[in-house]
Amino acid sequence: MTQPALIALDWGTTSLRAYLIASDGSALDTRASSAGIMKLPAGGFDQAFEETCGAWLDAHPRLPVVAAGMVGSAQGWVEAPYVETPAGADALVAGIVKVTAARGVIVHVVPGVLERGTLPNVMRGEETQIFGALASDASLDATSGALIGLPGTHAKWAFVRDGRIERFYTFMTGETFGALRDHTILGRTMHPSSTPDQTSFLRGVDTAHDAGHPGLLATIFSTRTLGLTGELSAEQQPDYLSGLLIGHELRGLNEVLAREQATLAGKTLRLIGNDALCDRYRAALARFGCHDAKTVAHATERGLYGIAAQAGLATSPARAA
Amino acid sequence: MTQPALIALDWGTTSLRAYLIASDGSALDTRASSAGIMKLPAGGFDQAFEETCGAWLDAHPRLPVVAAGMVGSAQGWVEAPYVETPAGADALVAGIVKVTAARGVIVHVVPGVLERGTLPNVMRGEETQIFGALASDASLDATSGALIGLPGTHAKWAFVRDGRIERFYTFMTGETFGALRDHTILGRTMHPSSTPDQTSFLRGVDTAHDAGHPGLLATIFSTRTLGLTGELSAEQQPDYLSGLLIGHELRGLNEVLAREQATLAGKTLRLIGNDALCDRYRAALARFGCHDAKTVAHATERGLYGIAAQAGLATSPARAA
Repeated sequence: MTQPALIALDWGTTSLRAYLIASDGSALDTRASSAGIMKLPAGGFDQAFEETCGAWLDAHPRLPVVAAGMVGSAQGWVEAPYVETPAGADALVAGIVKVTAARGVIVHVVPGVLERGTLPNVMRGEETQIFGALASDASLDATSGALIGLPGTHAKWAFVRDGRIERFYTFMTGETFGALRDHTILGRTMHPSSTPDQTSFLRGVDTAHDAGHPGLLATIFSTRTLGLTGELSAEQQPDYLSGLLIGHELRGLNEVLAREQATLAGKTLRLIGNDALCDRYRAALARFGCHDAKTVAHATERGLYGIAAQAGLATSPARAA
Repeated sequence: MTQPALIALDWGTTSLRAYLIASDGSALDTRASSAGIMKLPAGGFDQAFEETCGAWLDAHPRLPVVAAGMVGSAQGWVEAPYVETPAGADALVAGIVKVTAARGVIVHVVPGVLERGTLPNVMRGEETQIFGALASDASLDATSGALIGLPGTHAKWAFVRDGRIERFYTFMTGETFGALRDHTILGRTMHPSSTPDQTSFLRGVDTAHDAGHPGLLATIFSTRTLGLTGELSAEQQPDYLSGLLIGHELRGLNEVLAREQATLAGKTLRLIGNDALCDRYRAALARFGCHDAKTVAHATERGLYGIAAQAGLATSPARAA
């Protein structure tokens, strides 16, 4: 049996995911917990860590431990100050901050990344997933640069080149969708549907994509008025609104690219995230001419393993196929 | 003493405002009530009408009554089906639907306006205010067309020409602001401020206005990150977010205008709404080069009076100075 070489933690706001990783970089075991950092009582980090990883450490007391995500924020277990863009894996390794758990084990906390400017951006956890994607796909190392998208509550889009995160954007797409559906007039005419309505979703994407509208604050009202005119049923309205918002996200990204004579259609692009959501983004990206947006699997544990290896905490990372 | 000639009701979702109007079009008395149509019990229209206007009708039993707003919606007292764009005052008069109140008085309900298309739009009540603005300012009748903005929960911007509403847009600016502040992560770092922070507001407007950003879903996140980097205090964040959203609204409007070789800076433009909100919009419009956006006072009662007069319910409207 392959020996474990590392315990890796993806510790975010609402959940904690732990990986027991072998010396070839593959996950031998995983544990998921709802012990996100915003859900813990004071001093709760040690207890959550013990409950999630205690059995592994009982069996293998000398395993190194690495953690990424909001666990390194000002509200986390220990604050690992942001590393600034452009940021490579070496900078993340140099920025690791250690915290000693109650059982004496040292937890190595990976810093997040900050981009300064008129519109500052921050990430914690996604930087590690991005380096996991880079480690698993040699084509992303090309000097022409690649674009990596991480859909979700706060979607991130990172421009990477030469193994570094050059800059990135945060789109509050998922959280805005929830706020509009649950707390504005738009939700009043909606009914949840048990099956996704791809046609309504793509109608929303196309509406956001096409020229002629005056922006998101105006297009979203059509979720309601297309219902009033009998063109969208109550069950179709949630998928239409979702398509609108994701369409506006991609349109915004495309406009940023246009200023550097690029387009989504011509970019090397990868997605990281849950399969259903990445599928939605892939369908939306196709409407923008981008048909090569593969989802990168296992980016989280590969990223954590790669950073641990570069920090000398685990054997050198195995390059995944 | 001037004799009353009309009772005019502006009856919306959350409030009812009643005007006792003289034959010269001026308001002799007003009554405000929170009896908006969404707050009434079944059959509550008659009671709210009686409570608000009963004393006036006791004194002047033969006064005609006209009403505009959501009172004419499918959820209203009687449904007055939408009139379609382009819509003039004559079409609104022709679309009036009558309902008889318990005391035998006939209430004349003005229809709303519908614009069909890929992004349908609807208004109820604003059409009457727009005709009130046209009646009070001869320069808006010019054939070159004017733009009338009605800031609020659902801001409307109407293109009027030759006395008709040609087309209009609805921006969910106010409601989106509330949903983002009260139901997303952005509110967590905000503190309410007792005094408006004009500098932060304009910073938001300018950020939305300037090129280089990837759209609203991305810029709003800067409300949080400018706090993280120490550039916006908790008290400044609400005004910054408000400026961002109003800036995105005006940017969207400007992009629509650009497609017809026009700009906000070059448009004849008027605002209808409460003074504080119109002041905010005026400050934002100035950043888009528009320095001539006067607020039209008394648009509601003037619009109601004008439609009533055109319907033969009151003496001919007095043209305001």
